[in-house]
Parts: sequence; C-alpha cells; structure tokens
Amino acid sequence: MKLTRRVKEILANYESDNPGVKGNLARILMEGKLGGSGKLVILPVDQGFEHGPARSFAPNPPGYDPHYHYQLAIDAGCNAYAAPLGSLEAGADTFAGAIPTILKMNSANSLSTQKEAADQAVTASVKDALRLGCAAIGFTIYPGSEAMYDQYEEIRELSAEAKSVGIATVIWSYPRGGNISKDGELAVDVIGYAAHMAALLGAHIIKVKLPSAHLENAEAKKVYESKGIKIDTLPDRVKHIMQCSFNGRRIVVFSGGAAKGEDAVFDDARAIRDGGGNGSIIGRNAFQRPKEEALALLDRIMKIYQGKE
Amino acid sequence: MKLTRRVKEILANYESDNPGVKGNLARILMEGKLGGSGKLVILPVDQGFEHGPARSFAPNPPGYDPHYHYQLAIDAGCNAYAAPLGSLEAGADTFAGAIPTILKMNSANSLSTQKEAADQAVTASVKDALRLGCAAIGFTIYPGSEAMYDQYEEIRELSAEAKSVGIATVIWSYPRGGNISKDGELAVDVIGYAAHMAALLGAHIIKVKLPSAHLENAEAKKVYESKGIKIDTLPDRVKHIMQCSFNGRRIVVFSGGAAKGEDAVFDDARAIRDGGGNGSIIGRNAFQRPKEEALALLDRIMKIYQGKE
Amino acid sequence: MKLTRRVKEILANYESDNPGVKGNLARILMEGKLGGSGKLVILPVDQGFEHGPARSFAPNPPGYDPHYHYQLAIDAGCNAYAAPLGSLEAGADTFAGAIPTILKMNSANSLSTQKEAADQAVTASVKDALRLGCAAIGFTIYPGSEAMYDQYEEIRELSAEAKSVGIATVIWSYPRGGNISKDGELAVDVIGYAAHMAALLGAHIIKVKLPSAHLENAEAKKVYESKGIKIDTLPDRVKHIMQCSFNGRRIVVFSGGAAKGEDAVFDDARAIRDGGGNGSIIGRNAFQRPKEEALALLDRIMKIYQGKE
Amino acid sequence: MKLTRRVKEILANYESDNPGVKGNLARILMEGKLGGSGKLVILPVDQGFEHGPARSFAPNPPGYDPHYHYQLAIDAGCNAYAAPLGSLEAGADTFAGAIPTILKMNSANSLSTQKEAADQAVTASVKDALRLGCAAIGFTIYPGSEAMYDQYEEIRELSAEAKSVGIATVIWSYPRGGNISKDGELAVDVIGYAAHMAALLGAHIIKVKLPSAHLENAEAKKVYESKGIKIDTLPDRVKHIMQCSFNGRRIVVFSGGAAKGEDAVFDDARAIRDGGGNGSIIGRNAFQRPKEEALALLDRIMKIYQGKE
Amino acid sequence: MKLTRRVKEILANYESDNPGVKGNLARILMEGKLGGSGKLVILPVDQGFEHGPARSFAPNPPGYDPHYHYQLAIDAGCNAYAAPLGSLEAGADTFAGAIPTILKMNSANSLSTQKEAADQAVTASVKDALRLGCAAIGFTIYPGSEAMYDQYEEIRELSAEAKSVGIATVIWSYPRGGNISKDGELAVDVIGYAAHMAALLGAHIIKVKLPSAHLENAEAKKVYESKGIKIDTLPDRVKHIMQCSFNGRRIVVFSGGAAKGEDAVFDDARAIRDGGGNGSIIGRNAFQRPKEEALALLDRIMKIYQGKE
Repeated sequence: MKLTRRVKEILANYESDNPGVKGNLARILMEGKLGGSGKLVILPVDQGFEHGPARSFAPNPPGYDPHYHYQLAIDAGCNAYAAPLGSLEAGADTFAGAIPTILKMNSANSLSTQKEAADQAVTASVKDALRLGCAAIGFTIYPGSEAMYDQYEEIRELSAEAKSVGIATVIWSYPRGGNISKDGELAVDVIGYAAHMAALLGAHIIKVKLPSAHLENAEAKKVYESKGIKIDTLPDRVKHIMQCSFNGRRIVVFSGGAAKGEDAVFDDARAIRDGGGNGSIIGRNAFQRPKEEALALLDRIMKIYQGKE
Repeated sequence: MKLTRRVKEILANYESDNPGVKGNLARILMEGKLGGSGKLVILPVDQGFEHGPARSFAPNPPGYDPHYHYQLAIDAGCNAYAAPLGSLEAGADTFAGAIPTILKMNSANSLSTQKEAADQAVTASVKDALRLGCAAIGFTIYPGSEAMYDQYEEIRELSAEAKSVGIATVIWSYPRGGNISKDGELAVDVIGYAAHMAALLGAHIIKVKLPSAHLENAEAKKVYESKGIKIDTLPDRVKHIMQCSFNGRRIVVFSGGAAKGEDAVFDDARAIRDGGGNGSIIGRNAFQRPKEEALALLDRIMKIYQGKE
Repeated sequence: MKLTRRVKEILANYESDNPGVKGNLARILMEGKLGGSGKLVILPVDQGFEHGPARSFAPNPPGYDPHYHYQLAIDAGCNAYAAPLGSLEAGADTFAGAIPTILKMNSANSLSTQKEAADQAVTASVKDALRLGCAAIGFTIYPGSEAMYDQYEEIRELSAEAKSVGIATVIWSYPRGGNISKDGELAVDVIGYAAHMAALLGAHIIKVKLPSAHLENAEAKKVYESKGIKIDTLPDRVKHIMQCSFNGRRIVVFSGGAAKGEDAVFDDARAIRDGGGNGSIIGRNAFQRPKEEALALLDRIMKIYQGKE
Repeated sequence: MKLTRRVKEILANYESDNPGVKGNLARILMEGKLGGSGKLVILPVDQGFEHGPARSFAPNPPGYDPHYHYQLAIDAGCNAYAAPLGSLEAGADTFAGAIPTILKMNSANSLSTQKEAADQAVTASVKDALRLGCAAIGFTIYPGSEAMYDQYEEIRELSAEAKSVGIATVIWSYPRGGNISKDGELAVDVIGYAAHMAALLGAHIIKVKLPSAHLENAEAKKVYESKGIKIDTLPDRVKHIMQCSFNGRRIVVFSGGAAKGEDAVFDDARAIRDGGGNGSIIGRNAFQRPKEEALALLDRIMKIYQGKE
Repeated sequence: MKLTRRVKEILANYESDNPGVKGNLARILMEGKLGGSGKLVILPVDQGFEHGPARSFAPNPPGYDPHYHYQLAIDAGCNAYAAPLGSLEAGADTFAGAIPTILKMNSANSLSTQKEAADQAVTASVKDALRLGCAAIGFTIYPGSEAMYDQYEEIRELSAEAKSVGIATVIWSYPRGGNISKDGELAVDVIGYAAHMAALLGAHIIKVKLPSAHLENAEAKKVYESKGIKIDTLPDRVKHIMQCSFNGRRIVVFSGGAAKGEDAVFDDARAIRDGGGNGSIIGRNAFQRPKEEALALLDRIMKIYQGKE
C-alpha cells in the first residue's frame, strides 16, 4: 500500500506514536472511496445498545443482522466500521480483513436513570480488539458529567494499552450531565472544549457533534465576543473546532445526530469540508434507510468530500 | 461425537470463538433427549439462593440434597444443569462427566433490601468453573438497575476470561430496578432490549423471560406501532426476541417463571418452538414436583420441541 | 492417623476438595476427646475484638493472656481453637502443632456505628494462615446486611485461595442488618437460609446460632405452615438446619450466645446432638469461667455428644 | 551487639516473627541511653503534617529543618526517631545508620473536614521503608471512626508486607470519630480496647495516649465496676493497658499529648514506669523546647525509666 | 555538562534520591538562561485543560498549536516546559531533547461541578513520561479538599514509581475545597502548610501561589502573632514559605495567577528573589501575550533572577 502525500502529512502529526499505531491509522485513511484523500466516512452502529434494537433497526429490518452493517460499510466504500463487541464478534470471521474495524469499548443505554453523573459501561478490552483484528478502539467521554474524571482515567488506561500494542484510539467526546444545559450540549464553546480535551487525552481521532452558534459558558462567551472568534456559519464553527484540536494536528470527524432529510445531511458534509474537518461519522442516516438509498446517500457524501459536488 | 448439521449451523454463528468454546457449546447441544436438534431444555437450580431453602425445597423435600438435581437433570435427558458453586461442588465427583454443567457465577437473595440498584454477589470464578469441569458460566444482569453498568463490566471480564480458556457464557438478562415498572419487567420492548444487550455483551446463550405484549418505553412504543412489529401472540413475541438476538445468530432460551399448571407450561413450550426459540430453562416447575411427575413433564416438553406434540 | 469410618463418611461429602483440604478437615475431626466421632467442640476466642478486653476477660483474668486459651482448648480436648491473627501469633511457637487452629479472618467491634450495613474488617490473609500452620480460615458473613454482597465476594476470594493451598473454610453465618428484626436474627427460617447460603458459598464447616421457633419472612412463613415443617422443639429446628445445609452433607456447629447457666448449656448440647448437628462452638461459656469449671463444663458437653449423658 | 536478658525476654514474646523483624526490634531496644533495659523513649515528629509547620516549629525554629530532629534524637540518646516520608528522605544519607528510624506511613492534617469518618492518607510504602533503611513502619488507626475498618485492612496489608521483609510494625491506636465523645477518646475502657485491637492486628509496638479514669461505654462500665478493675491512679491504668495488650506480651509506649510543664511530663513517665509500661513517645514536649532544654528533659525522663529518680 | 557549585549544593539536599532523579533535576537546573544559577523559570501550559481552548489561546491564537509553546519555552531560555499528555505527544519528535519537559499527570476542567471535593483526573502515567523522555512528572494536590487524601495517595504511588525510574516529581500544591475560604486559598498560613505537606509527600520541586498576608486558621493565627513570624511584605512571606519547605532544602517555584500587567509580574519576581525563592512558573502571563512581548517579559524576569535589575 503506497501512502499518498496527504496521508503522510497527517501521519506526521502523530509524533509520539509507534509504527503499529501509524500503520492502523494508515489502514483507515487509505480504505474505501475516500482512501488517500485525508477525508473519512465511518459507519458506526452502536444504536442498538443506546436505544434498543427495535428503535434502531425496525425502520430497516435487515439491520437486526450484524452482518448487514459490515456489508453496508464495505459496499459503500467507507473507511471503517465501528460497533460494540458482540456485533464485531458476530461477523469477525466472515469479514476478517475486509474493512478496518473500530471496537466501541463502552456503551450507555436508554434504560439508565443517570442524569448529572451520566456514564457508560466498559464492555470490551484491548485484548478483544487484538483478537478481533481491530484497527482502533472507540470510547465515549461525557465532558461535564459528574462521572467525567473516572471516564478520563478509563480511556487513558485503555488508550495507553492500545498504543502499546499498535492500536489507534478514537474518542467520542459528547458533553452531557453536570450542569450543562440541553442547548449547551451543542454549544460551540463546549464542543470546542470537548474536542480539545479529547486531544489532550491523547486521541488519534476525535468525534464530536456539529456545533451550534450557542455559547454556554459566561466566561467563554466574553472571550468569544471580545476576541471576535467567528462562529456565525457552520463552516466557521467547524474551522474553530479544528483549531481547538491542536490547530488541525488531530483528525476530527463529525456526527450529524438523528435521522433527517438527505439535503440536510449533504449540507452538513459541505460545511465539514469547507471548515476543514476530516469527515463524517454517519450511523442512523445510513443504516435506517433501505440499503440502495443508503448507498446512494453515502456515495454522494463521499463525492462532496472529493469536491465533486 | 458426530455433530448434526443443525448443530454445525448453530456453531458457525459463533465466528470469533475458539475451538474450546465451540466444543463446550457442542457438548450442551448434543446432550440428552434433544441432543443434535438445536433445541435445549436446561435445569437451573439457584432458587435456594434466591428464595431460601424451605421456599424452594419444602414442596419436594428430596431437593434439599444437591445430588437430587444432578440426577433429575440426567434422568430427564436435559442438555445441561445450572447451579451455584456449593451445589456443583457437592456432586462434583459423583457426577463428573455425567452431564454438562453451568456454574452460576452470581446470586441475589431475598434478604436484600436493594430496589432501584438491584445487584447480585459474584460467588464463583472462572477457575472454579475449570476445576469443576463446567461447560459454561452463567451470570445474571439486571438491565435498568442503577447497578447495571457494574454488572456489565463484571460479566465482560468474566466472559473474556472464560472465552480465553474455552468455556461458554450464558447470560440471564432480567430487566429490574431503576425506573422499570413491574409490568415493564416483562414488556416485549424491554425484554427485546435486554436480549439484544446480552448479545452485544458477547453472550453465547441468552436467557430471558417470556415477554408480555406490554410496551414500557414511550419512544419504543411509537416505533412498535408505526412499524407494525407483530407482538400480539406469544409466538410473535418469541420471534421478535430472536430477531433482537442478532436475528437468530445467538441461542436464546426462555424461562417460565413461578410454578404453575402443566398445561400452561406446555403452551409456553409450543410458543417458544413456534416462534423459533431454542428452548426452555425450567427450574421450579421441574424440581418442585415429585420426581416422577417432573420427569413426565420434562419428557412431554421435549416431545413438543421435537415436534411430536 | 487412622481415620474412623464416620470421619471417612463425612470427608466423602466434600467431593470437589483436594487432599490438602480433606487432610485439614481430618485433623480437626480426629482431634481431642471427640476425635473420630464426627462430633466437634471448638473453642473460639474473638470476644476481645468484638466486645473489648475487659468485658471479655475481666470475669476470668488469666484470659487476658493469649496462651491461656490455647492451653484451655488443649486441656479440654477440643477439636480446634479459633482466634484472630494477633492471638494466634502470640502463641504460634509455644503451641505449634499442639492443636488445629482456625484463623479468624475478619472482625467487627462494638465501637462501630454500623447498623443496616453491618460489616467487618478483613484482618488476616491466607498467607497468614499458611505461615501460622492453621487448619482452616474462619469468616463471618451477615446475611441481610446491606454489606452482605461485598462480604460474600470477600469470602469467596479468600476461600478459593484457601482451597487452592489445602486450607479448609469455616463460615460464621450470622443474619444481621438490613431490615431483619432483632427476633429475626434467630428466626428458624432466617438461620436456615443463612446456613444454606454458607453452603452455597462453599463452606466446609458452617457455624450458626441455635434458632428460635420464630418465623421472620411472610413468604417463608406460609411455606413452613402449609408444608408442615417441624420447628416446635430445638432438636426439630437443629434437624431442619442440617437439612438446609445440603441435607447434612456439610458440617454444622452451633453457638450458644451469651454466658449462661450450665444447665442451659447442656440442654443446648443435647438438642444439637438429638437434631443431628455436628457440635458446639463455645466461647464465653468456656473462657469466662474459672479454668477448672470450664474444663468440667466442656468435659460434660463432650460426654453428651458421646451419648454418655 | 550482645542482647541483654531483658531484651531477649521481650523478643521471645514475638513467637511468629522471623529473625529480620526480631533483629529490627532488637536494634530499637538496644539503642541509646535506655538500650538493653527494655524501656524506650522514641522521638516522633509528624506534627508538621498534623498541625502545619508554623504551629509545630515556630516555638523552636531550628525544627523547620528535618536534620534538627534526627540530631536531637541522636544527641538525646533516644531509641528511635519516627517521621513521615519527606522528613526521613531529607536526612537519609547524612544520618544513615545513626539511629533506628520508623517511617510513619499515614498522616492526617488539620485542613480536613472529616469528623465521624476521620481518616488519614497513606503516604509511604514498605518499599520506601526498605530503601530508607527503616527499622519499623508506623501507622495510625482511629478505633471508632466510620473509616476504621478500612484502616484496619490497610495496616494489615502493610504490616504483612513489612513482616515478610523483616520490618517491625508500630501502631498508633487513637480512638476518634464515630460516636466516641471527646472525653471518650481518653477513657480507660476505650484506650484499653484500642490497645487490644492493635495487638490483635499484629502490632509489635503499640502506641496509645495515657488514659483518664473516665469510662465511656455503658456495658464496659458495668464490668469495670462489678469486677473491681483498678483504674484510680495513672499507674493503675497503665497496668490495665498492659494487661489489655496480651498481658504484657506486646511493647506499649505512651504519648503525653500537647506541650506542657516539665513536672507533668516527669509525673507521666513515673506513672508509665510504675504501671509497667515500656516507655514514652514524646514529640512536642521535646522538639518545641530549645535544644538544651529538650536534652535535659529527655535525659531526666530516661533517668526515671532507669529508676534513678 | 559541568554542574555549578550552586547546583551541586541544591542536589545535595536530595539525600535519598538515585542518580537518575538527580540527573534529571540537574537537567532542569542547568537549562536555559538561568542554567546553573539555582534559579528557574518554567513555562506551564495546562490552561487549555483548565479553562478551555478559546479562553486560553484566543488572546494569542498561535497558542492553539502545541508546537508554539515548546518553541516559546526554548526561545525564551526557560528551564523546562510543562504540559498535559496530548500536548507533549504532539511535539514529542520535533522537540525531542530540545528542552526538559514535565508531564502534567492530572488535570481538572471548568465544566466540573465539584466544590468541597475538588479533584482532578489522572490522565497520564509514569510510563508515558518515560516514553516521552520527560525529566519530571507534575501533579496537582488540593490541600483542604474532601478528596485530598485520595490525591495524596495517588501522587505517592506515582512519585514512588517515578523515583524508581529516575524521574523527578513536581507537586502543584493548591489549597482548595473543604471549608477553606476564597481568601484562605492564598493565606500565608495555608500556603505554608500546603508547601510543607508537598515536601513531606516527597516532592522534589514544589509549586505554590504567592501568598497574601491573610491568616486563615484561628489556631495558626495565634502562633503567627505570638511568635512574631514576619509576613508583612511579599519577600517576608516567600522567605517563610521556603522555611516551611524543609528550611530551603526543597526547590520552590511560585506562580503568579491570572494575566496581569508587566510591572506586577516583575514585582512578583523581585519578591521571590529577595525572599530566597527558587523562581517562577509563569503560564498565562507568557503565552497569552504576542510572542515578542512574551520573550521580552520572560527575558526581563530572568534578568531579575540574575540580579541584573
């Protein structure tokens, strides 16, 4: 596999990592239709854990079968497929080597009564990632939650172990809990902070939600206004998030949230592209559509990242 | 032991497991009167821990002796016998090799005052399972309980260790605690969710209660109704649970709950069979009856699974 | 040491244990005046920890010296001497090999303010038991306490380690805490449950208090009454406790509680004998009496177990 | 070093200890002006941690320097010098081998808001004691505190490790927290209980405060009165504490508390001597005086223990 | 590298440390414009974690890039650069060997809702420090916080491990939480206590804030007043802090807090110098200014420490 110049540039930002980790980042960056471009589209399927099987898969029932998602990611030309332990185990042999996989290491579920101390259960290990041949581990932190420091310590132990065996780390950084308001979960200052902390924690790839123009924290608001940080348009905000992520030295992918219309999905992708983001992590908008529709949608998103639209 | 085609098909679904685990699943699937059919009847005896000895065994006093249950499972032609540490130790030598055993790893008891944070004590280890020659470990999770994330982490560590030494994992997935209502513990959406999470946690065999047509969660209810998921009859609901369990890629057995009339027991078995479930795990309805009655009842259940009734 | 037939019968019930554990059980069963009979009288001295030195030893001041109790147990012809770490260490060399010892692994004290979550501190290790040459470890659980699941997990880890190095396990199973009433601590249903759980946790020897005819739990009460379980006399109740302890497959010894008159002590012993119990564990009624009185009392108890009174 | 008969007698009480531990106890017992007499005067300097540097050292400013205390202990002819990690490290090379040292393993401080659950931080390890050449570790327990069981478990693990590498254990047993009254912290029944528990936990040397004639616990009070335990004079009470400490089989040293007049200090020493105690552990009354005064005071205390005053 | 006499004097105070730790202290003391003088100026950049990226870096946007701070520290001739894991990793290769680095091991963030129990997450390990070639680890404790004892235990384990592999320990000792008042966080008695505890915990370098003349603790106030401890001027207070730090046997650097005018910064430096402090740790006042201004400011601070101003 001959790496492109762009991929080499990206890898050069990971100055402290061993060849194993860099090799796995390269596997992800070189895979699929966007391979070599420095852009990524990742298929994540942890909705079954988060919201239950019926809410996740009844809209498109073939999704009850874990094999469906592997195949969807492969057919769509995604860079990687991310899922919890059981899902990856269920197709581990059939799809061995067919696409880079990201083992989602922790999971919450909607039966939980936690609010201020929102947390997740750690449901996999780095050894699992090794035996399943994964390229990366994925882990969710909830900045703001009363449980956040415990989560930070968990991911640090897991990513230290993962780095030592050549596996990359993806952090889902989702502000939640504590005294963060509902609007604050998407506020650009809070998401910028969340991305920055993920970078400080040693993430190779950072996943955040697309931010709104809301400013949550009073102290931060003063700075955003007095320093004239541009946050009016979505591309502005994506650009700011990249700045918060070591000024672009870390890969950042954005998730779009709940299922929505195709045009909205495409607008998001254009904003991510124009703001200099690295790509999309797109779950429900893909696997809850009939397969042909999903393939068409993912194809057009990738064309947007290729600058063809 | 020559495996049947059906057993081979089932084993093929466990794509990430080593030959040790597959061998132990095969031992269970090939044992007893239903051996080779892909159907199972398992005898579990953890009622002594759950409800105390008198409430469990006074209805049929020979049950105070742990040997009684080993022999009942063998005489009835069950696929496996499941019990806590002390019970298995008490017959470990007399019944060595006579029937596959499942070491129940955690146990609750009715002296506990826990409600929202319902939990269990871990009372055995994978090393115990190895020295006692067990085919599988069994573990109860309480989805919904405030203690559920701790339980998920416990079973993940235990099952990772068990898998590494070739022992299979059975998860008892019983929604309870938190803000789940009494009806909700049997609601089809909740039990479907519980089965799905057990699969995601890496269970080889999933044990759930037979679900009612109740829908507990408001968000889920909308999906069940709008998508027209069939849950009217018990076979419909069993079929849905199988779908929630990786679309049938995982073995699911159903428990029937409190002791009841024979006809109700047989109706349950027919519904499980007709919905595509893998079988029954039947405790109090077996060991609280006089032995001859119990043998006759179990025999007829097995005939139902064989399609003879 | 040539084992008696009775001792061999008892040892045969410990089907999963290695020769090391069986050897230590044999050492205890073959020791002293009751050696070989299958009956036991054990001297426990953990009152100093539980109630303080003055309340424990001022009634018979030589008891302040740990050597006194070793010698009392030897002179009386007891089967074993049980005490906390410091007490055993203080006589470890003088009495090495002179009598089987049981290292009490955890201890509570009366300065504690715990009620519902009654607990103890673990104050010794299996390695301590090995270096002190002990035949068994002893551990108290409080079934019903909010801390009980933690205690169950502690004893399971300790007894697993002890079993692996050939040391036997004695569980003191004392219902307490949670919502158990004062009367409930001695209720026959609760003590039966406590004995049963100790057996399920893998105890070789179970220690419980002599039960009253009180029934604590409403559900259990229905069963005791409807099934006509005999609990009117003390021998009836002892018999029922033996039934709850794997139908007699586990050794059960009974403690008599606070210091009391001699006749009451003898009556207790006769009831234990007549109900099929294995013996007495008798502390304050022995060491708080002047030595000659204590020796006479213990001698007469042993005669009762020998059927001579 | 030729041990005296008295030191040999004392060492013989430590029946379970290895030659390493006995050797270190001998180093302490043979050191300084009281060397060989079986009596001890120990200089402890953990006040800086407990009350802060100014409150501790401003009365005698040379004490800000950790070297001062090493030299004071040496010049005074003390048996040992006890201090926290940083203090011992600061003079570890200059004073290597010059006097037996006791590494204080845990420390509280007066910024803490803990009351009922009074606790300390463990701030050193047995490995630290080894690399610093210490003869013993020191550890404070607070009998009565809601945190006491955790403390008991900590010291047990630390002392087990220390014993295994030949280092002795000193327990500071200070009743505090829970529902112990202010007077109760010095009550003779409570301090007797505290000393007894330290012995049961395996302490080689027990440090308690000099007890008052107050009786805290109602149950204990009845026994003290009905059994006529003598507690009127301070020598009586010291004698009783020795009795509570395995009838004198364990070394017990007494601390005098806050800085006070010389005569009071000497009276305390005479009472300890006359009651059969092993000596004094004397901090603030030594290091808060100008050095010449401190040397004179310590010299006279030692003379009292030698029976010269 | 030929050490100066002053540096040798300082190293001689670390009597218990191995050559690895002394070598790393020497690397820091010999680096930059103040190299060899025994004075230090350290650049710490953990504000991004503490206050978020925009509040930290918007005043001087090049600071979003982790490389900027490495280069600033080098160009300014600082003794060391301190930052969290991700920041050091991001420049680990480019700046390998260019300046001694201090890995900040724990971090708080302003999304936290903790007050009385203020805490931080441990986000790095000693192994990280080794693989990144760091000279020291840095760790924040909050004396007074309800979580302080846990923090003391964490740093003790980390520094014990660091010392064993030749890495030095810097403790940020910041009183906070519990019942410490806002003024109390800077009170000279409290900061003196905080510095003293850091020394007792084994810190090689202690970082505290410059103290005010406020006295927080009533008991301490009495001593400060009765003993006439001089705390009127800032140099007086610095001198007292050095006294509290083993009478100057430990390196102490002072931080100046929020960004402020240049003259105030210089006044602080003069006071630290005149009071005998070892130097400044100066973050926001450096990296939030344009680079040329920052270099000029740091140069002048260093000249002050050299006695040139």
